[in-house]
Amino acid sequence: MKGIRHLVSVDDLSVAEIQELFEQAKAFAVDLRAHADLCRGLISASLFYEPSTRTRLSFESAMQRLGGGVLTAAEMRSSSAVKGESLADTVRVVSGSYSDLIVLRHSSEGAARLAAQYSNVPVINAGDGSHEHPTQTLCDLYTLWIEKGHIEGLDVVLAGDLLYSRTIHSFVYALARFGANIVCVPHRGFELPPYVVRRLREEYGAEPVRADASELGDLAEESDVVYMTPQKPHQLSLFTDSRGLRVGRVDAVYMTRPQTERHGKDDDLSRSYMKLGQNSLSAGSLREAVVMHPLPRRDEISSELDDDPRSIYFKQAARGVPIRMAILGFLLGKIELKSSPPAAGARLWPVAAGTNPCPNPTCVSNTEERHLQLAFRLTSRDPLRAVCGYCSQEMPIGLVGCSTTRHFHDRDSASARRIRPDHLIFFRDEAEATALGFSAATR
Amino acid sequence: MKGIRHLVSVDDLSVAEIQELFEQAKAFAVDLRAHADLCRGLISASLFYEPSTRTRLSFESAMQRLGGGVLTAAEMRSSSAVKGESLADTVRVVSGSYSDLIVLRHSSEGAARLAAQYSNVPVINAGDGSHEHPTQTLCDLYTLWIEKGHIEGLDVVLAGDLLYSRTIHSFVYALARFGANIVCVPHRGFELPPYVVRRLREEYGAEPVRADASELGDLAEESDVVYMTPQKPHQLSLFTDSRGLRVGRVDAVYMTRPQTERHGKDDDLSRSYMKLGQNSLSAGSLREAVVMHPLPRRDEISSELDDDPRSIYFKQAARGVPIRMAILGFLLGKIELKSSPPAAGARLWPVAAGTNPCPNPTCVSNTEERHLQLAFRLTSRDPLRAVCGYCSQEMPIGLVGCSTTRHFHDRDSASARRIRPDHLIFFRDEAEATALGFSAATR
Amino acid sequence: MKGIRHLVSVDDLSVAEIQELFEQAKAFAVDLRAHADLCRGLISASLFYEPSTRTRLSFESAMQRLGGGVLTAAEMRSSSAVKGESLADTVRVVSGSYSDLIVLRHSSEGAARLAAQYSNVPVINAGDGSHEHPTQTLCDLYTLWIEKGHIEGLDVVLAGDLLYSRTIHSFVYALARFGANIVCVPHRGFELPPYVVRRLREEYGAEPVRADASELGDLAEESDVVYMTPQKPHQLSLFTDSRGLRVGRVDAVYMTRPQTERHGKDDDLSRSYMKLGQNSLSAGSLREAVVMHPLPRRDEISSELDDDPRSIYFKQAARGVPIRMAILGFLLGKIELKSSPPAAGARLWPVAAGTNPCPNPTCVSNTEERHLQLAFRLTSRDPLRAVCGYCSQEMPIGLVGCSTTRHFHDRDSASARRIRPDHLIFFRDEAEATALGFSAATR
Repeated sequence: MKGIRHLVSVDDLSVAEIQELFEQAKAFAVDLRAHADLCRGLISASLFYEPSTRTRLSFESAMQRLGGGVLTAAEMRSSSAVKGESLADTVRVVSGSYSDLIVLRHSSEGAARLAAQYSNVPVINAGDGSHEHPTQTLCDLYTLWIEKGHIEGLDVVLAGDLLYSRTIHSFVYALARFGANIVCVPHRGFELPPYVVRRLREEYGAEPVRADASELGDLAEESDVVYMTPQKPHQLSLFTDSRGLRVGRVDAVYMTRPQTERHGKDDDLSRSYMKLGQNSLSAGSLREAVVMHPLPRRDEISSELDDDPRSIYFKQAARGVPIRMAILGFLLGKIELKSSPPAAGARLWPVAAGTNPCPNPTCVSNTEERHLQLAFRLTSRDPLRAVCGYCSQEMPIGLVGCSTTRHFHDRDSASARRIRPDHLIFFRDEAEATALGFSAATR
Repeated sequence: MKGIRHLVSVDDLSVAEIQELFEQAKAFAVDLRAHADLCRGLISASLFYEPSTRTRLSFESAMQRLGGGVLTAAEMRSSSAVKGESLADTVRVVSGSYSDLIVLRHSSEGAARLAAQYSNVPVINAGDGSHEHPTQTLCDLYTLWIEKGHIEGLDVVLAGDLLYSRTIHSFVYALARFGANIVCVPHRGFELPPYVVRRLREEYGAEPVRADASELGDLAEESDVVYMTPQKPHQLSLFTDSRGLRVGRVDAVYMTRPQTERHGKDDDLSRSYMKLGQNSLSAGSLREAVVMHPLPRRDEISSELDDDPRSIYFKQAARGVPIRMAILGFLLGKIELKSSPPAAGARLWPVAAGTNPCPNPTCVSNTEERHLQLAFRLTSRDPLRAVCGYCSQEMPIGLVGCSTTRHFHDRDSASARRIRPDHLIFFRDEAEATALGFSAATR
Repeated sequence: MKGIRHLVSVDDLSVAEIQELFEQAKAFAVDLRAHADLCRGLISASLFYEPSTRTRLSFESAMQRLGGGVLTAAEMRSSSAVKGESLADTVRVVSGSYSDLIVLRHSSEGAARLAAQYSNVPVINAGDGSHEHPTQTLCDLYTLWIEKGHIEGLDVVLAGDLLYSRTIHSFVYALARFGANIVCVPHRGFELPPYVVRRLREEYGAEPVRADASELGDLAEESDVVYMTPQKPHQLSLFTDSRGLRVGRVDAVYMTRPQTERHGKDDDLSRSYMKLGQNSLSAGSLREAVVMHPLPRRDEISSELDDDPRSIYFKQAARGVPIRMAILGFLLGKIELKSSPPAAGARLWPVAAGTNPCPNPTCVSNTEERHLQLAFRLTSRDPLRAVCGYCSQEMPIGLVGCSTTRHFHDRDSASARRIRPDHLIFFRDEAEATALGFSAATR
């Protein structure tokens, strides 16, 4: 809206823009204290509906290092939310004259998308539930880029809980987008979820292949390693035999903690979980692999690795400041990029009738009662597939209606596929369709 | 004290000063980002004993836009208050060298008055219980002034919960003081309380008249509309017939939410409460009425009004920043006003004996045990009437004593009226008077 | 480490350095608002694991008055600590690029020492449990110095709860170090604890003497007054007779509140506790005694003293800002001191085997499970005595082992005393020693 750029998703920036931001961040990093005039007079507001001190401080440090001011609401839930204000209203007020940019952290998926719709100033998504956290992803990519000089063609191991980690999901899409190869070394039972694999395949052409991880040594011992490359799937057959594709030299190992808070306290998991130590990194293939972690860690990286020169997780965290300085400076209009922005993504269509088809109970479309227009994105025509316009979860479609003919159709029928998106209505079942005054299509 | 100006009540500023502050705010609003040098080197401290993120951020934005620094204590209750420090001591410390101005939010009525007594720097009342919130009121007046060019003679509808809303009470006094006419359109059962009406009458000559609201259409349909004007009560008869005074063209509608947190969660009220929508504003008399709301709103303003050009509640919120910039700049000595300050208000007299006569259990005089000198203000001699020097609530006076004669008298006796204020002592009943060594006056 | 100076303990600064900081603070105090360029571009992070608004605001005011920025984490416990991050990791991240200095408040004794070990930037201890709070102590000393022109030779009364007050303990060591005389006027039953007295004796030669406090009047009436001087113990006999040493002219009375939160809510104590009023200060010996208090106070200083010119507790609090400005400016490298730093203190040795010998359950060595190397300091060879390297509490030593011979010895044996510190291992008892593979020494 209004020509304002937001950063709700990494996809809001083009690959070329991201490259430029990396160059800018690198320039800032030479002396973080030398840019205290760039954003003087501007104010960033941290609206945190769930606490995340690390993320908040990183943004606030970046803004202050640019000479800007900071407004902090570290515990939004305990305040005006009590009086029942909608997120949309809060954003309209805070973006009215209080601040020149909003950094939003929220427990509901899609909250930043909603905020961006109502904001008069740029919104940065600092984590919306288990959905996206684009500056974390950009920090991770930036770190890879600084360490290795490029991202395309790198072989990056993702290890640990690949099922529940938001960080991993965002990172894996970004790696694919930048043309890096992905080696999944999940803790057993915590493989990448099918919808992530499907998106990798459909959007980036990254097909998973069983891998022969014998050269990874201890690191991969108890894991079903999977290899994915977005670059040259036709070449896969060259390297694959009955044992799977051979995984050789690794450029980076990205480790994650068990997301116990997302699937209940699992003490057993904490005990049995993969643990990175000197042994896990002793294989020759890992000699030049940098070890990354989004932090905070618990026990999944042994402190014996802290002094290993390959361990760069603290450097990685430190790089959150210059990359956020670049992002803030850009969104606040103080840094100009030469590259073109991304082509507009798949369009958002309003949900015109019926109940909310989004199945995700923690999606902002289900947690915010007011000032929210239900919306979906069509991701496929055949089969007909739509995701929630906020949280990106696939909607379970039973029947499909047309708002002009007032007929409903089978989801997989040719008639359904012919309905214009702005006339499309999704029903869970016939009862819902009938209740809304729709009738079966005459054949 | 010491020539420091505080903003505890709107009455701490003269009408002429307020006008000047409006001009200043308007100048700031041309470019909020262009004044970052005015208060450089100065620090404002937000001491919030109850959370109010919106108010806090508005002040902190204003201070930072002036180039000043901000100290934030957003949750005072959880901190040194635990160790039992009095408000007076906290204020003495924070105003000692920490900050150059204090913004105080407190749940007890009168807290800001107490703070101002002990502070070495200006104190701004950012809300003291259900008592006052002067910068909200000034923001509301400023918005009216910007929209309509003047305030005197405007017809302003106040709608909704007029009984419990602190905002409404402060606003209604200010409207009367500035010479605007007030049209009360209360949710049934939530009329302006008698003490507010009495003060309007006694201090501003605004007499309530039953009104004929037929031209207001849906807006006033279920309400007993009352009209008050501080300006020309003698003219009322010209417009009044058996149906009451005719309400014609309205300049502004000020809507408030139900203050359910002040009278218990009343879900029924929330359901039945007045709701402003296109219908409510369709009457011709409302064609040029701006719609205001102090926010946060719940459902009392339908979102269908958000895009109506008359809806200015988000602009109103945005104007909180420039008006607070003007107030901060003035109190910090960086903006000079040519106008005279208000004449000193009715004097504060110490309560010299007995228990606290203030009947308000949440008044700071009842919640702060230490470093507080009980005080009252005489508001009338005949009948003898006094209000608490902190929360402004009327004191129930049973008997009246004289500290020199040690006699007590009937409240309504001539003897009582003759006692000098500094000798006046209030007793609830004879038992209390006797216990304190006073005896009945001989006739 | 790395040449970075920290302020974990007052002992991290030499007496000459402290004197220079006092001069600097005095220069700042001439106009606190005139130094807003000294630390421009630098950022201080307040990491508060327990709330302490007063201390936090004092630091944040000082940093902002120097033109620096501030990152605030006022409630660390509710945030990433939930995800189980170690203090060491948090410090590594925050000191990585977020901030240029860390102000740490923590409920565990020794937390600041641990933080300093891992930090890339200076760490200031803003209170670690009941252990140290060096800037409070420096503020107290600075106040004495400003008021009296010097500290050496002053007679300072310490009154109230001398048993549990961290502030008193730090202050008493500092007074001894600066050559002031100490007059203990404890609330009965709340005398200085033996370990404090022992340290005063062993490190500063301050021997406690029973005192004749008749000239102190009401102040000392119900107390067993004790006199200590670090300066000229040989002279004590000149002034001491059977009634004890005569206490004459007093320079300062330092009052403390009952630390009820450290020994359970003791309402009786609150009632019976010493209370300073005009009576307590009426003795001639107290005519020029300034009255100090670290604040917050409860009832132990009557408000009738607030206007007494000797009462300087609010001035004392105000002086926290200039002294912290001096400390921040120094640690951030913006103020150079000519004096030499203190000689390195007694060395820290790692605990090489066995369980943690520190008996303090709230010591950070017992509350932090990860990224902490247990350590001790040898304070005496004969008898063998060691304190925890974090919280400074004496370790109960049962048996002593040598890591090379794998033998254990009686603590008081000559063999024990001959073991090199880096080979020393402490056991609680023989069972522990045997379990760890040590055997009794052959004689």
